[in-house]
Amino acid sequence: MHGAGDVRIENVPDARLIEPTDALVVVSRAAVCGSDLWPYRSMPADENGRRMGHEFVGTIEAVGADVRKIKVGDLVASPFLYSDGTCIFCQEGLPSSCLHGGRYGYNGVDGGQGEAVRVPQADGTLVRLPVGKDHALMPSLLTLTDVMATGHHAAVSARVGPGKSVAVVGGGAVGLCGVLAARRLGAEQVILLDRHPDRIALAREFGATEIVSERGEEAVARVRELTHGFGVHSALECVGYEESTLTSLSIARPGGAVGRVGIPQGELLPAALATFFNNVTISGGPAPARAYIEELLPDVLEGRIEPGRVFDWVGTLDQVPDGYRAMNDRKAIKALIEF
Amino acid sequence: MHGAGDVRIENVPDARLIEPTDALVVVSRAAVCGSDLWPYRSMPADENGRRMGHEFVGTIEAVGADVRKIKVGDLVASPFLYSDGTCIFCQEGLPSSCLHGGRYGYNGVDGGQGEAVRVPQADGTLVRLPVGKDHALMPSLLTLTDVMATGHHAAVSARVGPGKSVAVVGGGAVGLCGVLAARRLGAEQVILLDRHPDRIALAREFGATEIVSERGEEAVARVRELTHGFGVHSALECVGYEESTLTSLSIARPGGAVGRVGIPQGELLPAALATFFNNVTISGGPAPARAYIEELLPDVLEGRIEPGRVFDWVGTLDQVPDGYRAMNDRKAIKALIEF
Repeated sequence: MHGAGDVRIENVPDARLIEPTDALVVVSRAAVCGSDLWPYRSMPADENGRRMGHEFVGTIEAVGADVRKIKVGDLVASPFLYSDGTCIFCQEGLPSSCLHGGRYGYNGVDGGQGEAVRVPQADGTLVRLPVGKDHALMPSLLTLTDVMATGHHAAVSARVGPGKSVAVVGGGAVGLCGVLAARRLGAEQVILLDRHPDRIALAREFGATEIVSERGEEAVARVRELTHGFGVHSALECVGYEESTLTSLSIARPGGAVGRVGIPQGELLPAALATFFNNVTISGGPAPARAYIEELLPDVLEGRIEPGRVFDWVGTLDQVPDGYRAMNDRKAIKALIEF
Repeated sequence: MHGAGDVRIENVPDARLIEPTDALVVVSRAAVCGSDLWPYRSMPADENGRRMGHEFVGTIEAVGADVRKIKVGDLVASPFLYSDGTCIFCQEGLPSSCLHGGRYGYNGVDGGQGEAVRVPQADGTLVRLPVGKDHALMPSLLTLTDVMATGHHAAVSARVGPGKSVAVVGGGAVGLCGVLAARRLGAEQVILLDRHPDRIALAREFGATEIVSERGEEAVARVRELTHGFGVHSALECVGYEESTLTSLSIARPGGAVGRVGIPQGELLPAALATFFNNVTISGGPAPARAYIEELLPDVLEGRIEPGRVFDWVGTLDQVPDGYRAMNDRKAIKALIEF
């Protein structure tokens, strides 16, 4: 990406092993993330550009001398952050805070929207997939690298559980996966706050019980009406704007919880007093996707959840700029890149 | 209270039963709360005045026709909010959000800093104390009405548990009870952030392992030094100012939690991004004191904790204005009123 709206497919030096803990992955499927749209809308022009993408599945082409758990030829998925799997935070189930982890596309690490990726900390990061690379489940498996793990994190952070009432604020790919995650965790009532017909239709298929298309104070009032006047046990903030955050914090019932996974677009959280007097818990952050994949993988493999349905745009590498545009124009929920 | 700095002892109509669920309590001990100092510093002059006080222990003088669980002559403690004990939130352990509950000193309900109090929802609110009214434990029992329950709530909200590292921000009566609560819940390391020698001395006796007297960014750096560079598992925000809140949110380690019990003095929470990227949970609010008293009472009665030591000023009703002044001038941690 060379600036707002300026995505280019360019030739770069071949990805190669650098550290003995690296693996080289030839990408077979990648995706465009809602978070990729933040720079797509606002990045200052930069002729050097930035490598993009952090969701990919592919085949191991080479491994460094210290890599033990995966081998050449394995089909693997990478969570959107790499992590060593051994540090104190990885051990505590929070690989997103790994002491030796990091982000794709930064500090000399490749982006996932490309033909090959050097994966640091390969043993800690990569998860072997027990299927062939063209298996029908591949789109759903690809969502485990980010959006399904992130929707699950929103639900876990918001303390979703059996019988709970849940509201999902924002029906993008993450919010839709949040609907799926909430139902999977036993939620009885799942209200989606969104106004786009394609998202609403998929949310209903994923198990949303009610739709609220109002915004702001009207949305808060409507959610209260649907919840005996109290608000929801669990609100999933899947956008990151101040307005959606305020809505999420305002629809939580006393003693409820908000799981925020939309990247905050500001430094302040609203509703400090209301959340205080209602004992509302605010939790969430970047999903510890690596820690969740093992829990979610069997449900995908056995067909109990089908999060890959969020992909409603499929293209090749050359078409990636169109994928960004379609997502930014709300003509697509999420773009899948096939290699 | 008739305005900032203007506390007067006045004759008011005798407290009396109004609803059949009321009880009439003749107060034997009451207290001045840190939260009473907010209006003491800022309340606009008001000739009608406001009834003050919400922490008291006393003897039942009369009960309404529907009161079943307590009887005339019982010595009782009242949590700082009244609650019916039967609504959905009371059942869920959150009597501070009781649908029929409320605050002392508002809407025709008496304040606790007086000779007698009409207690609404008496069956749900009051807890019978199995000792005589002049028992040596009375100061500690009185803290169960607010500050010890609130310190415990800060610790519970911040997920204190065995082996955890804890920082308590603010060494007022609530913070000191937070130290006690953190140790009681098994915390290994308890760092108090405060600079007043009398508070620090008592915190050490309550089990604080380290003291940080720096403020702002220096305090954050010092706490990190004491915690392997990571920050604490649990931060207890016991003040309510934006600076103390920012400190609390900044010293929590990745995956850690902040329990806030200081009444927020603003509508915004800082550090939205840092807490997000570190997956820090923000929780807390008014303590559900009524729900905690039963858990904490045995520890007080059996002498395992002695929170009543926070009272370092004792006076009669006529001396209450001096008690406010002593607390406001930081010459006393907390004032006890004996009747």
